[in-house]
Amino acid sequence: MNTIPQPTVKRLCTIYQFLVELEREGMTSISSAELGEKVGIGSHNVRKDISFLGGVGNCGSGYEIAKLKEKIAAHLGLKEKKLTCIVGLGRIGSALLQHAQHFPGEYQIVAGFDSNINKVETIKTNISVFPAYQITEVVKKMRINLGIIAVPEAAAQEAAARLIEGGIKGIVNFSATHIKTSCKDIFIRNIDITSELRILSALIKINIDNQQ
Amino acid sequence: MNTIPQPTVKRLCTIYQFLVELEREGMTSISSAELGEKVGIGSHNVRKDISFLGGVGNCGSGYEIAKLKEKIAAHLGLKEKKLTCIVGLGRIGSALLQHAQHFPGEYQIVAGFDSNINKVETIKTNISVFPAYQITEVVKKMRINLGIIAVPEAAAQEAAARLIEGGIKGIVNFSATHIKTSCKDIFIRNIDITSELRILSALIKINIDNQQ
Repeated sequence: MNTIPQPTVKRLCTIYQFLVELEREGMTSISSAELGEKVGIGSHNVRKDISFLGGVGNCGSGYEIAKLKEKIAAHLGLKEKKLTCIVGLGRIGSALLQHAQHFPGEYQIVAGFDSNINKVETIKTNISVFPAYQITEVVKKMRINLGIIAVPEAAAQEAAARLIEGGIKGIVNFSATHIKTSCKDIFIRNIDITSELRILSALIKINIDNQQ
Repeated sequence: MNTIPQPTVKRLCTIYQFLVELEREGMTSISSAELGEKVGIGSHNVRKDISFLGGVGNCGSGYEIAKLKEKIAAHLGLKEKKLTCIVGLGRIGSALLQHAQHFPGEYQIVAGFDSNINKVETIKTNISVFPAYQITEVVKKMRINLGIIAVPEAAAQEAAARLIEGGIKGIVNFSATHIKTSCKDIFIRNIDITSELRILSALIKINIDNQQ
């Protein structure tokens, strides 16, 4: 099998998300041009990305949505269950913990951590919570796959280090700082609302500038 | 001035974020190669993106961080104040509302909305809150620039429609559905933790597959 480049992996995940939504809306097929428009790339690149999956029938009317969705899921391991934990049970972290039941079944939240022992003892949740110093130990013992970091900026890098020491290879970071790692096999997705607001205001300004 | 393409605008915002962090760490200059490595693009593309800003001195040791930062901010209007509002004051929305004081000064949260009148009347916050049916009116009256949506999936598209009717051109969407718009001058950033977890697990799987 050909090695799938990282940007293709990310785009296939975006395509997968659109397919899930299109299927929910009752659609059964879609052309590479329509998919490209949704994902923001050309139809040629859509076909190239999808070609990494091997044979996916593309009849005259386009891709069969159910079939393409299954093919992407199988190749990218999207249906395999991953145990997930949340570090930091402040406002965002505890909101995510409460929201856990709405996560798709593949991403089961199985543990929460906080450095405030009092919070760990009093928080109301069905999910097991532990003090932050036990992160590495619990992640190893429970074989947790993914981590979500929602701690204050200053504590984020340390939280990541403990998760990685426990064996976690993928982290979603909600703290206001970018987490860095020099390991090529650790993947981090930084979610930063300030960056998003900045991108929006830049796009709006440039759009207005261009019209003048 | 040359029209700056949208992908360049987004990359310049990412570069800006790194420059803020590098400055905080006490660095004063950086090469295009180092910047490219951080942003995940080649140094040639970094130089091309930066060339849209006009003359930015690149001496032998690289770009002067403070100068490049100011240049990006000026071109993309990043220092201009934008009034921001939050629609949906459930767990995530009210966490963001409480978090508002940590936002950079440019993105002042000035209003919150919720369809539950009881919540609007009882929520404890210094920020003005209104019932959801007043979104369009309040956005117009207060001249709000940006909106953050944190409502349940089924209500997201309607919330966006009301914001857009009020004149908002940029939306950060935290709901679990992608918000669509056919207007070319409206920009939406969908933040979806499930998509992030999916991308992480796909990157991890492909990385392991490639090593075998």
